[in-house]
Amino acid sequence: MAGSRFAYVRKFELPDSLLPGTFMVFRLDGHSFHRFSDIHNFAKPNDLRALQLMDHAARDLMEEYPDIILGFGESDEFSFLLRKSTDLYNRRQAKIVSTLTSLFTSSYVFHWSSYFLDTPLQYPPSFDGRIVLYPGEQQIRDYFAWRQADTHINNLYNTAFWALVQQGGETTTQAHHTLRGTVSKEKHEILFSRFQINYNQVDEQYRKGSVLVRQEIPEPPTAQVTIPKELDDNIPPVPEPSQTGGKKTKPKRDVKQKTKIVVLHCDIIKDEFWEARPDLLHD
Amino acid sequence: MAGSRFAYVRKFELPDSLLPGTFMVFRLDGHSFHRFSDIHNFAKPNDLRALQLMDHAARDLMEEYPDIILGFGESDEFSFLLRKSTDLYNRRQAKIVSTLTSLFTSSYVFHWSSYFLDTPLQYPPSFDGRIVLYPGEQQIRDYFAWRQADTHINNLYNTAFWALVQQGGETTTQAHHTLRGTVSKEKHEILFSRFQINYNQVDEQYRKGSVLVRQEIPEPPTAQVTIPKELDDNIPPVPEPSQTGGKKTKPKRDVKQKTKIVVLHCDIIKDEFWEARPDLLHD
Amino acid sequence: MAGSRFAYVRKFELPDSLLPGTFMVFRLDGHSFHRFSDIHNFAKPNDLRALQLMDHAARDLMEEYPDIILGFGESDEFSFLLRKSTDLYNRRQAKIVSTLTSLFTSSYVFHWSSYFLDTPLQYPPSFDGRIVLYPGEQQIRDYFAWRQADTHINNLYNTAFWALVQQGGETTTQAHHTLRGTVSKEKHEILFSRFQINYNQVDEQYRKGSVLVRQEIPEPPTAQVTIPKELDDNIPPVPEPSQTGGKKTKPKRDVKQKTKIVVLHCDIIKDEFWEARPDLLHD
Amino acid sequence: MAGSRFAYVRKFELPDSLLPGTFMVFRLDGHSFHRFSDIHNFAKPNDLRALQLMDHAARDLMEEYPDIILGFGESDEFSFLLRKSTDLYNRRQAKIVSTLTSLFTSSYVFHWSSYFLDTPLQYPPSFDGRIVLYPGEQQIRDYFAWRQADTHINNLYNTAFWALVQQGGETTTQAHHTLRGTVSKEKHEILFSRFQINYNQVDEQYRKGSVLVRQEIPEPPTAQVTIPKELDDNIPPVPEPSQTGGKKTKPKRDVKQKTKIVVLHCDIIKDEFWEARPDLLHD
Repeated sequence: MAGSRFAYVRKFELPDSLLPGTFMVFRLDGHSFHRFSDIHNFAKPNDLRALQLMDHAARDLMEEYPDIILGFGESDEFSFLLRKSTDLYNRRQAKIVSTLTSLFTSSYVFHWSSYFLDTPLQYPPSFDGRIVLYPGEQQIRDYFAWRQADTHINNLYNTAFWALVQQGGETTTQAHHTLRGTVSKEKHEILFSRFQINYNQVDEQYRKGSVLVRQEIPEPPTAQVTIPKELDDNIPPVPEPSQTGGKKTKPKRDVKQKTKIVVLHCDIIKDEFWEARPDLLHD
Repeated sequence: MAGSRFAYVRKFELPDSLLPGTFMVFRLDGHSFHRFSDIHNFAKPNDLRALQLMDHAARDLMEEYPDIILGFGESDEFSFLLRKSTDLYNRRQAKIVSTLTSLFTSSYVFHWSSYFLDTPLQYPPSFDGRIVLYPGEQQIRDYFAWRQADTHINNLYNTAFWALVQQGGETTTQAHHTLRGTVSKEKHEILFSRFQINYNQVDEQYRKGSVLVRQEIPEPPTAQVTIPKELDDNIPPVPEPSQTGGKKTKPKRDVKQKTKIVVLHCDIIKDEFWEARPDLLHD
Repeated sequence: MAGSRFAYVRKFELPDSLLPGTFMVFRLDGHSFHRFSDIHNFAKPNDLRALQLMDHAARDLMEEYPDIILGFGESDEFSFLLRKSTDLYNRRQAKIVSTLTSLFTSSYVFHWSSYFLDTPLQYPPSFDGRIVLYPGEQQIRDYFAWRQADTHINNLYNTAFWALVQQGGETTTQAHHTLRGTVSKEKHEILFSRFQINYNQVDEQYRKGSVLVRQEIPEPPTAQVTIPKELDDNIPPVPEPSQTGGKKTKPKRDVKQKTKIVVLHCDIIKDEFWEARPDLLHD
Repeated sequence: MAGSRFAYVRKFELPDSLLPGTFMVFRLDGHSFHRFSDIHNFAKPNDLRALQLMDHAARDLMEEYPDIILGFGESDEFSFLLRKSTDLYNRRQAKIVSTLTSLFTSSYVFHWSSYFLDTPLQYPPSFDGRIVLYPGEQQIRDYFAWRQADTHINNLYNTAFWALVQQGGETTTQAHHTLRGTVSKEKHEILFSRFQINYNQVDEQYRKGSVLVRQEIPEPPTAQVTIPKELDDNIPPVPEPSQTGGKKTKPKRDVKQKTKIVVLHCDIIKDEFWEARPDLLHD
């Protein structure tokens, strides 16, 4: 073959499989989204369209990759949990991190105009991704707790900051100064006493972030039809979705027929969420 | 801080810096593009719109990342050379591979409608990416030679195959059969004797792929103004673009002002291309 | 400093920390020990001196590194379990694997003459080492079960093989041929019917390998002295062994005062061993 | 097979091959050698026996592994250069680093009593090892220059320090204080004016460290026999030493017959050493 004397260059591609039997967390962050949100006039402190677009892209990703069993998003970031036993792309790191980042990005751009009706996309946005491995269940609980605690901290700050600016007439510099060193309780008080905002009544979507899980769809009641034996013999057997012998690297799609992905805005720090979904941590 | 008891989970994020002083080749491939090209009715054997869209995304990537000094694309794949001395994102592997894949994908979707005027994008396409390190110059030459040799092999096959189908009336199965075991010369003969196609006159774009390099833009002739010494002293010094102390992870953009990216369809296997551009292999 | 212009070469040394929160198994194998055992006339099928020397080196290693909580050896190999939470040498892979291999080797050569009284060491033997990470407890159980099952298989084969050669007068080629394809039960029968060897009565040391664990040493009975309350108040508090702030990379030695390492030849496949030692799997 | 249900644990062993086409530097350091040298009464500032023992172990390593083409040692450390094209153990990192560290350690203990005639080894010493990859020739030159510059700095300091203590009657604390902040020239002056030591006449072994290279052994002059043409045809061809088909992981030993390893104490910072040995940097 013409190219064969060059093919030795393939030997420089080293294997990068991730340790089996560990949870993978795939984490995405918007790249230079401060500038991106300014140029596209994102509402402050939260832009509902932008958050819903993120959720949409996350849902697309989870529909394509059944091994992603949980998603959590806030602002311009999203974290996804892949089941401990996943063998997606033979657990090759670069393949997983690049493909998932690519599809999320693609979906974000693809659906942009459905959410930003009057705001055309000015230039192609990008995200960075990484994978972190966790051997234990408690670490997974703590990872997602960490992100949701962060959501709370950021959103409380941003809510107070933009109230000071938008309603209180402060400059951004002044608002930063007003909030410097304040604890959580003091930010609540500023919001309530100066702007009549009860933070605990702020939309949960902003305070808790978005939690994406699969939910089983109840089977539609099918009419019981008795097929006479002689007819039955002529019905060709329904082919099983061919999975045996298939490449393990191919995402399986049959799960989609039985579950759907729902977006919640609930607490994931306490036990209740996890106890109701034991499959998240136990394959 | 509320989230601090969870923050230990960050310790599981391990460093993944790539060996300094080595060339990086970043390689992108379309994910399931066989299906994607079918659904979007790509012309066979080559769809000019699709190739130009790939080139556009590649150019966007190179404009954003000056450390990419060469690109080579064919079909649904692209390879990019990063200079040996690059310190992009501190050479962190996941950060580089995910960000570059993301921006390429984003640009591909963003510009889709400029190339596929009458073919709306049906669903978000995705790409996978990887980085391969090469310590030596010859290996870089051979890597790109390998890709261009592959382009030649694939395109000759595809050109013959689709001639047999589209002009020769063969089924795809028959066409595969006709070509099985033929060497290069025989494919040339089939094309010429049966379809009057001189393969060597097929557009170079298809036979050679796309080669993207930076080219210096000649400075516009500026009027020579002599500034008297006394005035000169009052002119405040032009501030240097602030790079000192800056995050090394930030792509520098000043290069864009002096060079532009051009798309060539030339040979990159022989010496000429490389000898004319010594900077590609020597920082 | 004279050397400072060269010091940039340190930047090529990349971090290699192992994932936190996972068990490490450190595994050693003799390098070319077939030749080594021939030259030093090891007894067949098992050389008691050689096994005891291996055990000695393993014990030295465990005494130096309290984070090693279990050892298992057979023939010329040894496996060691490091606790999941170990922070030995900041979990740097090359540092751990090289230092542990080095000390084991050093101890083996150092103590050689205590076991091989009449057989001088002819040349320096060597071992290779590696570390495998396991996220879960069951995997650790199965790893050690795998090694002990292997011990059984190898020892049964070797016992039968050398009985055929030493007592049965077969050549090694004949003995291999005699045993080819035999299952476990048939080897038992050959041993019993031809050589009156009841394999189940072969020394457990050979059938089970060596299991090294730490055992608490009962405190020597100290004379009970009643300290009057008023005096007690003046006694300065006993300082805790200073561990805080210390370099985590330093092996802690204080454990040695309270435990000793014992060599057992017991079953580690069934539950009993592990249930009696819950600390092995739970930090 | 009895052990087969446990054998899945092997899947956790991940590949760790090092990038092809790059130089490997294998670096060894004594572990806790401050304590080790105290207990064994090493002479200060340099113990000739200890250095010669290090050189011996290094030579043993180079004789066993022909792919090591250069060694440099000082004090309790040694660096070895493996040729860029080496395929030793398929370039598996843990295998290489552990085996080389093991053999060096083993040789050190094995030969101890040949150098320390009246000083029995008190306990098994150990070393740690690591591998650093370098893509370029200049980096290799600079790595070894860095180590030799370091040798110079350390030895000048130590020579002055121990002269102050041993001949000047200072305590070690005083000697540290005397030297604090002194530059190279001042240390030379202290040595010369107070102790009549011309540092440049100190044994090169201490000032330059040990440089181990392979040197070709001249073929012994064989009697020239003229073989008549007709006889010559009947002589069967001399078989080449069989290397084809052999495991690449096996160190080749035939080189030993043609070269020997010599210990030099020469400059390796300037060009001369390298220009005389072009094979070190060019495979």
